[in-house]
Amino acid sequence: MRLKFSITALLLEVIIIVLFGIFVEYENRDTFLSSYPYFQDVHVMIFVGFGFLMTFLKKYGFSSVGINMLVAAFGLQWGTLMQGFWHMKGGKIHVNIKSMINADFSTATALISFGAVLGKTSPLQMLIMTLLEITIFACNEHLVTKILQAMDVGASMTIHAFGAYFGLAVTLILYRPGLKNKHENEESTYNSDIFAMIGTLFLWLFWPSFNSAIASDETFQVKAIVNTYYSLAACTIITFALSSLVDQRGKFSMVLIQNATLAGGVAVGTCADMSIHPFAAMCIGGIAGIISVLGFRFLTPLLSSKLNIQDTCGVHNLHGLPGILGGIAGIVVTAIKEEVRQDVISTPGMQAAALGSTIGIALAGGALTGGILKLPFLGQASDQNCFDDSVYWEVPEEEKLHEIHSNNYDEHSRFEANM
Amino acid sequence: MRLKFSITALLLEVIIIVLFGIFVEYENRDTFLSSYPYFQDVHVMIFVGFGFLMTFLKKYGFSSVGINMLVAAFGLQWGTLMQGFWHMKGGKIHVNIKSMINADFSTATALISFGAVLGKTSPLQMLIMTLLEITIFACNEHLVTKILQAMDVGASMTIHAFGAYFGLAVTLILYRPGLKNKHENEESTYNSDIFAMIGTLFLWLFWPSFNSAIASDETFQVKAIVNTYYSLAACTIITFALSSLVDQRGKFSMVLIQNATLAGGVAVGTCADMSIHPFAAMCIGGIAGIISVLGFRFLTPLLSSKLNIQDTCGVHNLHGLPGILGGIAGIVVTAIKEEVRQDVISTPGMQAAALGSTIGIALAGGALTGGILKLPFLGQASDQNCFDDSVYWEVPEEEKLHEIHSNNYDEHSRFEANM
Amino acid sequence: MRLKFSITALLLEVIIIVLFGIFVEYENRDTFLSSYPYFQDVHVMIFVGFGFLMTFLKKYGFSSVGINMLVAAFGLQWGTLMQGFWHMKGGKIHVNIKSMINADFSTATALISFGAVLGKTSPLQMLIMTLLEITIFACNEHLVTKILQAMDVGASMTIHAFGAYFGLAVTLILYRPGLKNKHENEESTYNSDIFAMIGTLFLWLFWPSFNSAIASDETFQVKAIVNTYYSLAACTIITFALSSLVDQRGKFSMVLIQNATLAGGVAVGTCADMSIHPFAAMCIGGIAGIISVLGFRFLTPLLSSKLNIQDTCGVHNLHGLPGILGGIAGIVVTAIKEEVRQDVISTPGMQAAALGSTIGIALAGGALTGGILKLPFLGQASDQNCFDDSVYWEVPEEEKLHEIHSNNYDEHSRFEANM
Repeated sequence: MRLKFSITALLLEVIIIVLFGIFVEYENRDTFLSSYPYFQDVHVMIFVGFGFLMTFLKKYGFSSVGINMLVAAFGLQWGTLMQGFWHMKGGKIHVNIKSMINADFSTATALISFGAVLGKTSPLQMLIMTLLEITIFACNEHLVTKILQAMDVGASMTIHAFGAYFGLAVTLILYRPGLKNKHENEESTYNSDIFAMIGTLFLWLFWPSFNSAIASDETFQVKAIVNTYYSLAACTIITFALSSLVDQRGKFSMVLIQNATLAGGVAVGTCADMSIHPFAAMCIGGIAGIISVLGFRFLTPLLSSKLNIQDTCGVHNLHGLPGILGGIAGIVVTAIKEEVRQDVISTPGMQAAALGSTIGIALAGGALTGGILKLPFLGQASDQNCFDDSVYWEVPEEEKLHEIHSNNYDEHSRFEANM
Repeated sequence: MRLKFSITALLLEVIIIVLFGIFVEYENRDTFLSSYPYFQDVHVMIFVGFGFLMTFLKKYGFSSVGINMLVAAFGLQWGTLMQGFWHMKGGKIHVNIKSMINADFSTATALISFGAVLGKTSPLQMLIMTLLEITIFACNEHLVTKILQAMDVGASMTIHAFGAYFGLAVTLILYRPGLKNKHENEESTYNSDIFAMIGTLFLWLFWPSFNSAIASDETFQVKAIVNTYYSLAACTIITFALSSLVDQRGKFSMVLIQNATLAGGVAVGTCADMSIHPFAAMCIGGIAGIISVLGFRFLTPLLSSKLNIQDTCGVHNLHGLPGILGGIAGIVVTAIKEEVRQDVISTPGMQAAALGSTIGIALAGGALTGGILKLPFLGQASDQNCFDDSVYWEVPEEEKLHEIHSNNYDEHSRFEANM
Repeated sequence: MRLKFSITALLLEVIIIVLFGIFVEYENRDTFLSSYPYFQDVHVMIFVGFGFLMTFLKKYGFSSVGINMLVAAFGLQWGTLMQGFWHMKGGKIHVNIKSMINADFSTATALISFGAVLGKTSPLQMLIMTLLEITIFACNEHLVTKILQAMDVGASMTIHAFGAYFGLAVTLILYRPGLKNKHENEESTYNSDIFAMIGTLFLWLFWPSFNSAIASDETFQVKAIVNTYYSLAACTIITFALSSLVDQRGKFSMVLIQNATLAGGVAVGTCADMSIHPFAAMCIGGIAGIISVLGFRFLTPLLSSKLNIQDTCGVHNLHGLPGILGGIAGIVVTAIKEEVRQDVISTPGMQAAALGSTIGIALAGGALTGGILKLPFLGQASDQNCFDDSVYWEVPEEEKLHEIHSNNYDEHSRFEANM
C-alpha cells in the first residue's frame, strides 16, 4: 500500500508537470482579473466547503478534509489539462483566472462522487477515480455546452447531477454486503456535526458566486447572484420545516440541515442567470428542499437496502435529484425563452438532451470507473476498517486510549448488569 | 410542538414567496456589482460570525449555528420586503446587490437579540421574534436615516443598539426565576470555546466591510475601512490588558476575548466614514474595549440579579453599550462637522434624536414582542431543559452515553467519598 | 504577572495611539480600493490561517488562536508606524489599503516566530518580541526592497525566511533543557488536528492573494496568482506522496499535511510575478514539498537534539527552508531575466545579498531579542507548565474534571494490573 500510493502519486505529478511544460502557457491578456473574488469564493467552497461538509463522521475527519484536499489539488491540475485540450489555440492551453475557476469546478465532480463512496475507498482509489472522472467530465461538458449549446451556468447538470450519478455508479459497483447493516463508525459526534456545519455554511454563503462566476456579462451575473441568494433562503426555511415534520418527535436532524439546505443552490443553477424572477427562484429552491429532505428520509435507505447503492453522504439527495430538478427547470425556461432572454439559442430539446447525456455518461463512466477501482492491485480496506482514519493516517494516541477506555466502560456496564 | 413549528414555517415561507411574486422585481440596471465582495464579507459575518460566536455553550452548538441559520435565512427574505416597502417605485421593490446587503443587515438585529435569549426560547418563538423585530427595525431605520437624516453608516445605532435593547426587553419579559442561579449547562467546554473563536475572528476580520459596505462613495468607503481596522486593533489590545487586570489571578477570560475585542467595530460604526482621523478611531475603539470588559465583569451579573435581565451572550456589552458610545460619537462628530465633512446635513440634535428613538423603539418593541412570545401557544422549554440542544435536535448517541458515563463517574466518586 | 502584562500592554497602546495622533494621516486619494479583496484574503490568513494552524496542540488552543490575535492586532499597529517611518511625506505617514496590506504582512513575521516558541513563552514576552521583531523587519525590508532593489513580491525572503530564522534564534537563546524529552502536552488530539486544518486551508486558499497583493500592476498580479495556484497544487501532491513514503506503515501524518502542503506558496513567492511559466512554478512547488517533508522528518529532531533549537511548529520547514529556496529561485530568475521581465532592475548579486542580509539580520535580531526575553522581569512559565493554556487562561471546569477522571482511570488500570 505504502509504495503503491506514493509511487502512483509521484508519477502522476511528474506526468502532469511535463504536460504543463509542453502545453500550458499564460493567457496573453487576462481580462478576467475582476473575476478573482468569484474564484476565491469557489476555491473556499471546494476546499473548506466540501472538505468540512464531510467531517461529520466520528472517526473520518482527517480523511474527509485531507483526502478532499488531495483530490482537489490533483483534480485542478488534471482539470486544467482536460478542459484545456478542448480549447487549445496554436497547440497551447492558455491559463487565466477563468480557467482556474473552471479547473476548480471540474474538481467538484470528483468531490461529489467522493461523498458517495466516503469511508469505503483508499486514497489511491480516489486518485484513480479523480483522474478518470475529470477526463470524462471534460468530454461531457464539451458535449453539453459546445455541441448541444445547452445553458447550464451554475452547472446543475454538468457538475452536480454528473458527480452524483457517477459516484452512485461507482459505489454500486463497489457494493459491500458487509456494510448492509449500519457500520458502528458510520455516525457522527457532537463536535463532528459542528465541524460539518463549517462546510455547510461556506458552501451556502458562496453559492451565489458559484452560480455566477462564469456568467457571460455583469447583467447576468447579478441575476445569478440574486436568484441563488433567494433560492437558498427559501430552501432553508422549507428544510427546517420538513426536518421537524418528518421526525417522529419533531426534532431537527443535523444531516438534513447540513445538506438539504444547500439543494436550492444546486437546483437553481442551470437557469440562474436567466430573468426567471426571484419568485420562481424561490419556488425552485423550495421544491429542491422538499425533494432533498424526502430523499434523505425515504429514498437513501431504499437505495441501500433494495438497490445496493450505499451513498455515504447522501449525494443523491443534495446533488443528484436537485441537479435533475435544475435540468428540468432549464427545459421549462428555454421553452418560454422569448420572455426571459433573447440571446439563448438553446431549445428545450437541447436542454433535455444535455440532461439525458449527462446522466447517461455519468452512470456509464461511473460503472467503468468502479470496475477499475475493484482491481485487486488497488487494495481497499476491509469492511470493518471502513469509516476509520487510522487505516490511512497516524491518529493521536489519546484516541486509542479513549477507545480502550470506552471498552473498559462497556465491560464495566456489563459487569454491573450482571450483578 | 412538531406541527406548530413546521406549519408556521411553511405558512410564512408561502406568504413570503407570494409577496415576492407580487412586489419584487430585479433592479433594471444594477450598478452595485462592485459591492459584491463587501456583500460576501457581510454574508459571512451573519452566518458564520454570529452563528459560531454563539457556539460557546457546551450543549447548545447545534442550536447556535443552526437556529442562527434559520433566523438569518428567514430574516433576509422578510427584511427584503420590510425595507423594500419603504422604497417602492411603481409599486415594486427592486432588488440588487445593495438591497441584499441591507437584507443581511436587517437580520443582524434579530441575531443580536437571539444572543440575549439564547438557550431559553424555542425555534418557533425565534421565527416570531424575527418577524416582529425586522418589521419594527425597518420602521426605525426609515425614521433615523430618512426622516431624521442621521448618519449611521456602520449602524451602531440602528442595528447594534437596536438589536441589543430589543433583545434585553424580550429577555426581561421572558424572565425565568428558575435560572437565577447559574444553570449547569450554561458553561463552555474547551472545544466549544475554540469553535466560538471562529465566529469572533470572522466578525473581527470583516467588520471593516460591514462599516463601509453602504458608504456613499469610494472616498468614504476607504475612510470607513481604515477607521474600523485601527479601532478594532486598539480595542483588542485594551481588551487583553483589562481581561488580565480584572481577573484575580491575572488570567485571560475567553468570554471577554470572544466578545469585547469586537466592541471597537460597533462603536466606530456611526462615524466610520467621516474624516475623524485614525487617532480618534483608535480612541473610540479603546474606550469601547474598556466599557465592554467592565460591562461583562460588573454590569451583566447586576442586570441579572437586580433587574431580572438574563442576557445569555452579554449582547448588552458587545452591542448595547458600544452602540450607545457610537451614537454619542456621532453627536460629537456632527457638532464639529465643518471640519470633518461638508455634505453631512445631520445636526447633533438629529443624531441625539436618532439615538433616543432607536433605544426607545427597541425597548418598547422588545417588550411587546416578549409579551407575544409568552403566549402559551408557543410553548417554551422548561427551565431544566434550557441550554440543551437535545430538546429540539437529534443529538448523536455518543453524547448520551457520555452523560450516562459522567453520571456513572459521579456515582463512583460519591461511592468513594462514602468509603 | 497580572499587573506586568496589563500595564505594559496599556502603556504600549497609549504610546501607539499618541504616535498615530502625531504622525498618521489618511492618504488623500486612495487608488488602492480595488486591492481591498486582496487585503481581506491576507487578513483572513493572518488571523484565521496562522491562528488556527497552531491550534494543533491538545491544551494550547486558546493561546494559539488568542495570543495570535493579540500579536497580530498589536503588530499591525506597530507595523504601520515602523514601515511608515521609512516612507514619510511631509513628516506624515499616509495610510490606505496598501499600507494596511503591508501592516498585516509585517505581523506575519512575528506570527512565524511565535510558531517557533509556541507553548514556551508568556503573552508579555510575545508583546516584546513583536515590538522588536517588527522594528527590525521594517529595517531589513527597506534594505532589501529599496536599497538592494531586490524583487520579493511574495516576501519569501523578507517575511518567511526572516520570521523563521528570527524565531529559531529566539528559541535557541530561550533553550529549555527540561524539554529535551518530549513534553506530555506537546501532542495533538483528534479535534485539535481538525481545528488546525481550518488554518491550513485558509492559508493554502488565499496564498495566491498573499503573493499578488502588492504586485505592481494587473499583468503581474495575474502571473502571481496563476503561479502560486499551481505551485501549491503540485506541492500538495508531492507532500501526500512523501508523507506516506517516509512513514514506516505508509500512513499520512497530519503535521505534514497541515504544514508541508503550504511550502509551495512560500517558495514561489520571490519570483511569483515573473513570467517563469506555470511549469517552473510547479517545479518550485514540488521541490518545496520535498524539502519541507524531509525537514520535518529528519532535520527538526536533529536541530532539537544536536543544536538545542526547539522549534514547536517546525517553522524552519514551512517558512525557513522554503524561504531560502524562494530566495535562490529569485537569484536564478534574475540571472536569466531578459527572458522573463524587462523592468526588473535587480541582479543575481543583489538578490543574493538580499537573501544573505535577511538571514543574517534575522539571526542577529532574534538572538538579541531572545536575550531580552530572558530577563527575569518577564518571567516565563516553568517547564512543566509549558504547552498549557491554564497558566494564562481561565479554562472550563469540565477539562479539569476530565483530568481528574483520566487520573482516576489510570489508577483504575493500575489497580487492575495489580490484580
